[in-house]
Amino acid sequence: MIAVIGAGQCDERIYQIAEQAGFELASRGHIIICGGLGGVIEAACKGAKKGKGTTVGILPGAEVSDANPFVDIAVATGLGIARNIIIVRSAQALLAINGSFGTLSEIAFALQLDKHVVGIETWDVSDRIIHVSSVADAIQELEKLLN
Amino acid sequence: MIAVIGAGQCDERIYQIAEQAGFELASRGHIIICGGLGGVIEAACKGAKKGKGTTVGILPGAEVSDANPFVDIAVATGLGIARNIIIVRSAQALLAINGSFGTLSEIAFALQLDKHVVGIETWDVSDRIIHVSSVADAIQELEKLLN
Amino acid sequence: MIAVIGAGQCDERIYQIAEQAGFELASRGHIIICGGLGGVIEAACKGAKKGKGTTVGILPGAEVSDANPFVDIAVATGLGIARNIIIVRSAQALLAINGSFGTLSEIAFALQLDKHVVGIETWDVSDRIIHVSSVADAIQELEKLLN
Amino acid sequence: MIAVIGAGQCDERIYQIAEQAGFELASRGHIIICGGLGGVIEAACKGAKKGKGTTVGILPGAEVSDANPFVDIAVATGLGIARNIIIVRSAQALLAINGSFGTLSEIAFALQLDKHVVGIETWDVSDRIIHVSSVADAIQELEKLLN
Repeated sequence: MIAVIGAGQCDERIYQIAEQAGFELASRGHIIICGGLGGVIEAACKGAKKGKGTTVGILPGAEVSDANPFVDIAVATGLGIARNIIIVRSAQALLAINGSFGTLSEIAFALQLDKHVVGIETWDVSDRIIHVSSVADAIQELEKLLN
Repeated sequence: MIAVIGAGQCDERIYQIAEQAGFELASRGHIIICGGLGGVIEAACKGAKKGKGTTVGILPGAEVSDANPFVDIAVATGLGIARNIIIVRSAQALLAINGSFGTLSEIAFALQLDKHVVGIETWDVSDRIIHVSSVADAIQELEKLLN
Repeated sequence: MIAVIGAGQCDERIYQIAEQAGFELASRGHIIICGGLGGVIEAACKGAKKGKGTTVGILPGAEVSDANPFVDIAVATGLGIARNIIIVRSAQALLAINGSFGTLSEIAFALQLDKHVVGIETWDVSDRIIHVSSVADAIQELEKLLN
Repeated sequence: MIAVIGAGQCDERIYQIAEQAGFELASRGHIIICGGLGGVIEAACKGAKKGKGTTVGILPGAEVSDANPFVDIAVATGLGIARNIIIVRSAQALLAINGSFGTLSEIAFALQLDKHVVGIETWDVSDRIIHVSSVADAIQELEKLLN
């Protein structure tokens, strides 16, 4: 299970990167876990479904109906942004695509918990984050980390 | 998604009831969400896999490897027993099989959140719990509630 | 630290019992921890302030301003009803006054965690709950348990 | 209520800065909320008690006895590092002293929730963090923000 993290709102270019990432990960058999809402997350889920994959959304709100339409397994935590830590704990590795402060909290938790983080145009807060500039490179790095 | 709740340790008779319940629910296309560990939960997951279903385990601990071997989607919350509320929120209805105080907390949350609860040999704390004496009756009541 | 638990809405008779309980506990030097909102909880906090005590409110919402006006230390969890478990964990013993399903979830957690529970007109789900019929008896039982 | 955040382990120089900060904040009547454990947090609590203040510790573990000896109100969450968000939500403003990834997660949450952050030798991830080089300057900035 790989987490895709990123902002709940994003521009069209980032959306397409995230959708491509979701597609490629799902096509290779990875389950995607994410925050279940919009922006980068929706894009990754949308791509994953095109890639015939499975998507898990860990929602901040109290209702599974909050999930974007591309989430297969919607988990309603009712915990607000404290749910970020659940996404991090459940993933073997994380792919961060762009992102704002919510994404930063997830990266911080991931580094604290010694999880691997690959990033595309994202926060640069540790040399343990592997920064790449394309989805293809991201997939390659993630699969290297998981083997 | 239907939650199966019950104690983490149980005798053989209750284990078989839970396994049968998991099998029947999965065979009818329901996804099972549960606490991901042993006893009634393991039995329900085991049955669900025999029924070709999907199982989601919301774990109290920090590692997905804590899940019983029949969990497909393991969510590591690291929240301890506070994770009980996530199981309840994410389910459309709950099937309680026997169970101790952890199960009682889940039943209480379910009633507080106006979720349907069907029970087999479980806590009798509200006339809103539908008590049944067989798995067949439980399935019938759950499907009635979801329609 | 003793937890006072009970429903967020209650009638005048229960309110007065809770206010008296808060007063007596605070007068004897106990800090009161509670859910921070209305009903039984507000009454207990109000009584505790009359008794020159300290009150801690563990709030479900995101803002400390949600607390009732008699809470000294307002902790905003943003976790919804998952915050119930924090109240239970932080208390040495619990006094349950009346209460609905939220209170039942707290009693269940308390019993699961081997905490002492004294109850006035509350849920009768275990013989480990010490049921009493007056505030004076409740205080006596709580102080016996803590020694 | 002001949060003091920072690493659970720190060197002597940082410890003394944190202790001084706790003393100055408490002397001015601020309640300190923190993670309740060691390092910067222990130092701030120690200083606060010298300053006759009140300290609140939001603990990751299940037992109030985990708190450092200078915590007055110990809240046992049992939520692991998810408790970080509670510290942030409950504070009017945050003082970050040095710190590692746990502190970074708290800063990220604070910025996401539009809380003020003053920092001494800490993460530089947003121009909304007010960086200062002394405790005196930190106190001055915090009090300016709260008025």
